[in-house]
Amino acid sequence: MSEYIELGFAKLDIERVKRRGYCEAVFCESKSDEQLVKIFQAFCDTGANVIGTRCCDKQYQILKKHFGSLLTYDKLAKVVTLVQREVEKIGEVAICTGGTGDIPVALEAALCAEFYGSNVKKYYDIGVAGIHRLFDKIDEIKKANVVVAVAGMEGALASIIAGLVDIPVIAVPTSVGYGASFGGLSALLTMLNSCAEGISVVNIDNGYNADYSANQINRLIEGKR
Amino acid sequence: MSEYIELGFAKLDIERVKRRGYCEAVFCESKSDEQLVKIFQAFCDTGANVIGTRCCDKQYQILKKHFGSLLTYDKLAKVVTLVQREVEKIGEVAICTGGTGDIPVALEAALCAEFYGSNVKKYYDIGVAGIHRLFDKIDEIKKANVVVAVAGMEGALASIIAGLVDIPVIAVPTSVGYGASFGGLSALLTMLNSCAEGISVVNIDNGYNADYSANQINRLIEGKR
Amino acid sequence: MSEYIELGFAKLDIERVKRRGYCEAVFCESKSDEQLVKIFQAFCDTGANVIGTRCCDKQYQILKKHFGSLLTYDKLAKVVTLVQREVEKIGEVAICTGGTGDIPVALEAALCAEFYGSNVKKYYDIGVAGIHRLFDKIDEIKKANVVVAVAGMEGALASIIAGLVDIPVIAVPTSVGYGASFGGLSALLTMLNSCAEGISVVNIDNGYNADYSANQINRLIEGKR
Amino acid sequence: MSEYIELGFAKLDIERVKRRGYCEAVFCESKSDEQLVKIFQAFCDTGANVIGTRCCDKQYQILKKHFGSLLTYDKLAKVVTLVQREVEKIGEVAICTGGTGDIPVALEAALCAEFYGSNVKKYYDIGVAGIHRLFDKIDEIKKANVVVAVAGMEGALASIIAGLVDIPVIAVPTSVGYGASFGGLSALLTMLNSCAEGISVVNIDNGYNADYSANQINRLIEGKR
Amino acid sequence: MSEYIELGFAKLDIERVKRRGYCEAVFCESKSDEQLVKIFQAFCDTGANVIGTRCCDKQYQILKKHFGSLLTYDKLAKVVTLVQREVEKIGEVAICTGGTGDIPVALEAALCAEFYGSNVKKYYDIGVAGIHRLFDKIDEIKKANVVVAVAGMEGALASIIAGLVDIPVIAVPTSVGYGASFGGLSALLTMLNSCAEGISVVNIDNGYNADYSANQINRLIEGKR
Amino acid sequence: MSEYIELGFAKLDIERVKRRGYCEAVFCESKSDEQLVKIFQAFCDTGANVIGTRCCDKQYQILKKHFGSLLTYDKLAKVVTLVQREVEKIGEVAICTGGTGDIPVALEAALCAEFYGSNVKKYYDIGVAGIHRLFDKIDEIKKANVVVAVAGMEGALASIIAGLVDIPVIAVPTSVGYGASFGGLSALLTMLNSCAEGISVVNIDNGYNADYSANQINRLIEGKR
Amino acid sequence: MSEYIELGFAKLDIERVKRRGYCEAVFCESKSDEQLVKIFQAFCDTGANVIGTRCCDKQYQILKKHFGSLLTYDKLAKVVTLVQREVEKIGEVAICTGGTGDIPVALEAALCAEFYGSNVKKYYDIGVAGIHRLFDKIDEIKKANVVVAVAGMEGALASIIAGLVDIPVIAVPTSVGYGASFGGLSALLTMLNSCAEGISVVNIDNGYNADYSANQINRLIEGKR
Amino acid sequence: MSEYIELGFAKLDIERVKRRGYCEAVFCESKSDEQLVKIFQAFCDTGANVIGTRCCDKQYQILKKHFGSLLTYDKLAKVVTLVQREVEKIGEVAICTGGTGDIPVALEAALCAEFYGSNVKKYYDIGVAGIHRLFDKIDEIKKANVVVAVAGMEGALASIIAGLVDIPVIAVPTSVGYGASFGGLSALLTMLNSCAEGISVVNIDNGYNADYSANQINRLIEGKR
Repeated sequence: MSEYIELGFAKLDIERVKRRGYCEAVFCESKSDEQLVKIFQAFCDTGANVIGTRCCDKQYQILKKHFGSLLTYDKLAKVVTLVQREVEKIGEVAICTGGTGDIPVALEAALCAEFYGSNVKKYYDIGVAGIHRLFDKIDEIKKANVVVAVAGMEGALASIIAGLVDIPVIAVPTSVGYGASFGGLSALLTMLNSCAEGISVVNIDNGYNADYSANQINRLIEGKR
Repeated sequence: MSEYIELGFAKLDIERVKRRGYCEAVFCESKSDEQLVKIFQAFCDTGANVIGTRCCDKQYQILKKHFGSLLTYDKLAKVVTLVQREVEKIGEVAICTGGTGDIPVALEAALCAEFYGSNVKKYYDIGVAGIHRLFDKIDEIKKANVVVAVAGMEGALASIIAGLVDIPVIAVPTSVGYGASFGGLSALLTMLNSCAEGISVVNIDNGYNADYSANQINRLIEGKR
Repeated sequence: MSEYIELGFAKLDIERVKRRGYCEAVFCESKSDEQLVKIFQAFCDTGANVIGTRCCDKQYQILKKHFGSLLTYDKLAKVVTLVQREVEKIGEVAICTGGTGDIPVALEAALCAEFYGSNVKKYYDIGVAGIHRLFDKIDEIKKANVVVAVAGMEGALASIIAGLVDIPVIAVPTSVGYGASFGGLSALLTMLNSCAEGISVVNIDNGYNADYSANQINRLIEGKR
Repeated sequence: MSEYIELGFAKLDIERVKRRGYCEAVFCESKSDEQLVKIFQAFCDTGANVIGTRCCDKQYQILKKHFGSLLTYDKLAKVVTLVQREVEKIGEVAICTGGTGDIPVALEAALCAEFYGSNVKKYYDIGVAGIHRLFDKIDEIKKANVVVAVAGMEGALASIIAGLVDIPVIAVPTSVGYGASFGGLSALLTMLNSCAEGISVVNIDNGYNADYSANQINRLIEGKR
Repeated sequence: MSEYIELGFAKLDIERVKRRGYCEAVFCESKSDEQLVKIFQAFCDTGANVIGTRCCDKQYQILKKHFGSLLTYDKLAKVVTLVQREVEKIGEVAICTGGTGDIPVALEAALCAEFYGSNVKKYYDIGVAGIHRLFDKIDEIKKANVVVAVAGMEGALASIIAGLVDIPVIAVPTSVGYGASFGGLSALLTMLNSCAEGISVVNIDNGYNADYSANQINRLIEGKR
Repeated sequence: MSEYIELGFAKLDIERVKRRGYCEAVFCESKSDEQLVKIFQAFCDTGANVIGTRCCDKQYQILKKHFGSLLTYDKLAKVVTLVQREVEKIGEVAICTGGTGDIPVALEAALCAEFYGSNVKKYYDIGVAGIHRLFDKIDEIKKANVVVAVAGMEGALASIIAGLVDIPVIAVPTSVGYGASFGGLSALLTMLNSCAEGISVVNIDNGYNADYSANQINRLIEGKR
Repeated sequence: MSEYIELGFAKLDIERVKRRGYCEAVFCESKSDEQLVKIFQAFCDTGANVIGTRCCDKQYQILKKHFGSLLTYDKLAKVVTLVQREVEKIGEVAICTGGTGDIPVALEAALCAEFYGSNVKKYYDIGVAGIHRLFDKIDEIKKANVVVAVAGMEGALASIIAGLVDIPVIAVPTSVGYGASFGGLSALLTMLNSCAEGISVVNIDNGYNADYSANQINRLIEGKR
Repeated sequence: MSEYIELGFAKLDIERVKRRGYCEAVFCESKSDEQLVKIFQAFCDTGANVIGTRCCDKQYQILKKHFGSLLTYDKLAKVVTLVQREVEKIGEVAICTGGTGDIPVALEAALCAEFYGSNVKKYYDIGVAGIHRLFDKIDEIKKANVVVAVAGMEGALASIIAGLVDIPVIAVPTSVGYGASFGGLSALLTMLNSCAEGISVVNIDNGYNADYSANQINRLIEGKR
């Protein structure tokens, strides 16, 4: 059916890369240094752009030795990108956070969405405890094609936004919180049970996946894949 | 230390009743018909007002045979009251619901608060999916001494209100919802993890307890016990 | 800010209805007969189309007495619709199920998507236990703008599909299963943890919400709200 | 609607600060050093008092460099306060713990309550395993306007106290314990299920929120906001 | 090793019956009528006393047809006993309940303890919400050899008693409660996490097992098996 | 790739049926009467044997009208079989239960294993509470090719058996029990955490799946598929 | 009612100490060094023996500086004892473990039981995976007055033993295991759901509490408190 | 009944070792260095092969000092083996992983299966996100006697494979993932709820146990124990 590169410990999808011009994100966390370099090299050799998530600083330093200035790294978001050909950014994705602690997850989403070809606008710390901060921004948010709502603790941000806009909302629960937040479970359940319509949810702290869906929708709305 | 009436299957606190002029609520659900009548009779004989929660229609019919017109019953809230002496209602408790399905719990709270001596104002269906409905009412809500926020599903109502008022908010999660609401767990966790300040929470569907605390606070603010 | 009809027990959003030409779905399950009729009447009076979910046969019979031939009812999906003005169906949403038991949830999604203006194609019983059944249909599925993947038990359908298409996948876990499916929790977790990209998830058995998002995305891609 | 200071990564509510004379607590745990200093500076510039919770010693040292003697820090409670104008303390909040291990959470509550303008009395190690210790203190506790009951393990303290007093009890479950305490879940459930009336509950280890509510109630009873 | 009667669907331990003079309790709930009669008959034929728990009224009626006046049945406790030879009752087991709703479980415990040869004293409705009721009885309770503490909701009864006596406390959580009691989980966790010493716990609603252990301890203290 | 019959609501795998001479089990529980008949008819038309699990008596009566004497039904196991050609039974599967209440699940396993071509021996009520009953049978059990161990409550049966035999043990947790058995979760966890080697586990109450694996292994050992 | 020493951060029960000649165990884990020393000193001054559990090596070193040779410490069990007057050991408690990993918890139980005046016999690594090891020891175990059964992973040890002896069994689940043992939850549930009679259970890893109950029962059987 | 070596802290099964020629795996994680060496020595002295799982590098270094070149160690799999006599490898076990992160668990399984006498073929990174990678290998996989399917995150691999092969599938959930994977719970539930037949499941990350069962089945199919 489909082509892939066989590395033994991994089988890299190449057909999609060729079709799309970029690879799926490399989840760096569970990879050894050697595996990581081999994967980046293999994708790089195809001429594609490469993106790695949950990449710690130590891993970045090792990648840097091999790929040098091709790489860009954001320490807070733990995202590394290797860009060989420019991707035109189109449309708009609005990325919102409930609080300051949700910013790393939001940033992961933002960097990935830009990597895949979406314009991004960020709205931080507009959570429900002080709802006027959200109202100040809502008209601007409405201009986007998709909203990504990132929130921990009680995670009510997505519900409020979905009640105010007519565009899809991708909700990302974060593990910010303590006690009965149970590592993000509280925010996850809130988002799944939202009584506002138009929300779909991704895994806890999974900024990447939210952005992937958001970018996909954004580009389709703009008439491109 | 303290006085009580011994019924064998139950020991009824009398000292408090004398001091307060009303009994703690009788939780009807797990009582046999005979037990229920005996408990109501015993309290009634002290001249106190009596309140029963989770009282099904069948139980009410049996109580009615014994206590007739002394009783008032609300089928939706499943609350029965036996009033022998009028309690003056003071102050104000605002009881708010996220949706229409939360009304029975809110009504339980409302009837109990009135029974214990608080004026009550009700604000139904002002949940976060259409937040302008809440904003229309917020100035009125602020005039109360305490807010009781009743909500199921994602339960974000309490957070929003607490972010807008400077009075205590008692949050009541309800079991309204399905799937990942897990019988009210979702709303419970939302309320416990609220990033808005000034919220404290009671058990799922426990309108009675919320009202008990709300009434207590309301009356203390008005300078009475 | 926004207009609504005050019914006491409910506050019906009218602004959105006017803007969109249809109301948000009425969640029938927790409404009394009287409440249900009043809500349908109020929306009907605005000239809007109305849709009710989780509407049991008994409730439908009562609505039928009031609204007669304006209503269409699907017993399996428990969806009732009141259509006063035709909505043009555009684009395409592909609704897939893992098994036969997932059909009621899929049907809820399908009826709602059509109500809101999307063309729908259904692909039933293409779950992972016999994966060639999915492969037979995958080229057809790829032609849609959005996929809704409905599955209970282990819920792996969404992952497989997302790995094969380049369009957004909305995943709906169902409560089909027993034992360690824990009422749909198993399928929910599977979908949230998918290693395939482009999946976002709604609440267990929430065909309606999946469709709402799918319709929204589908119409935006087609250039309409 | 409402004013706030825009810091990019945070939006600080100023209107409330002006109205109340103090800010909401800064949750230090998830903030970078730079963010923390900027937030304290911004609030400080308004002339308001500032309070930070879950502030580790390292963060305090950094704040100290900027705000010097304006700061007071309690290492056990992890609370830092910056006081520019004295707040008159009124009324009384009784803060009780089940055991010695609950003291840090109780202290967080105590320091915050004092910061916000309540007199505080502390009653440590009066848990149910040796109930006479509680009885020795109960008459004194009854003189407060509100009780904060802090307990881990089985968390029964709140129930006992609420059965003995006629004032509101705010219960704080703590994560003290091991095994089946599941990080405070045991104490949390105990408190939510209390058969004593007049208890409302906050998140596990959330001394701050308990105190916030307690202070609010205490001051309202004393006739002030 | 050991003897048993083979019934095909069951293998009845006879050695123990001979040694002890009574059988282990027959758990009636999951047995067919036919199975139940056969098991009772087989034990009866050995001359032993027989006890059945969770025996519904319908099952009792069927047993009654076969064993007539040999049987005693308690509908509330759902316990049926078939006594062929008198067992001398010795020592004393104190069975306490938190509330009225816990009585069926306590009664199961009481009837079983008596069946196995212990004197029983019952103390109902002495839960923590009105702790003076417990104090009135504590001196009497202390005279027993073992305490069985039966409580639902927050289940704090066992902790209080264990803090006041120097004899073993067997704690029985009950499923009395709702919402976050999660079918008795709350009381179970409370009892397992008790900070009072000398408590051990049995399964939710398992009055029988508590009594079995209590009887065993009671008789051993009295110098008998 | 593979053939199937398209019924619209279901897609029936035919290739496997042809290869194996029997279909995968039809899970009757979630099927409508009409769907059930259609599925049985379609399989029947291929000349294959058909088996249905979780088939209630009412469903059986409807099937009986169509397929008459071809059907065999076991009410306790809820298994219906339609046999058109005899399958030779080979090897041996030992099916053991902890208690009498586990028999329905064991019987489902037994009937299915026989349907698929394995000889079955049953050992009921040999649970750990009276371990000598197991020891009496262990030499016989060892002669099988595979053991299926069915147990609820604490579910320790599988561990004991696996420690005594050198053949694979398939463990089936059942939902027999109450309270903290949490619908079979207790037995499931016991079996997954067994310190005895050679155990693998299937879903709660899933006698069918256990038997499927057991039959597969049994036949492979006997040199057949 | 009862005497205690007030240390501010703790209130030490003295009446019981006087009556029993020993204090309740000091739970060292959550105490500061200073608190620990003060508590030991206060108890020591009464002439009582003192025992501390979960005492890490560092804490022991600090205590040693103050109490020197009065102390005995076991690093594996993390138990420290300060003995000023000899306690006669009577009766017998049998302490059994499923595996080698359970020894630290068993040792905590053993040391405490000896401290409180029970003879102890230990039986390690007699778990169900090799049940003949248990049978070799069972006659010896039966001679004790009480059994403490310590086991992690699937925790079936208690069930097996209780099926073989006629004395009380106190079961201690341990957190030994991984994956679906969920920190001891698996063993806890197994023990609570045991179908063998005469088992009662304490918290996960709570060797101390098991021993406390075991010692209490053992001494009462021997006719002493 | 059966022989074992008594080491005090452990009782080593010797009878099985003699019968099988190898010991059960030594679970190194919870053993002290001294215990580990003693256990290896005792088994070694019988002339048997020995295998240790979850053996960290530090433990290996210590064992190496005693057993030198008899040992083989794999750091990634944390498996150490001591081989004194060659075991002939027969048949074939196919070990498959969903992703690269699952390799350590798969490797543990592979090394153990080889140790016990099975030929092993490994198929890494063939998870459902790119299903063509699996299809490329499926014909090869079908040639094995048993499949071990190792997968984290959503864990759908086992379902897909079981739908494509006619041999037993042992599924191993891994803890690879984050957020709502809850330490492997998600993959565990997926595997237990598989709608594909012929899957049985072991504990999270328990490569060893999967292999043990797989090896047992593989060898029995090949006609050996």
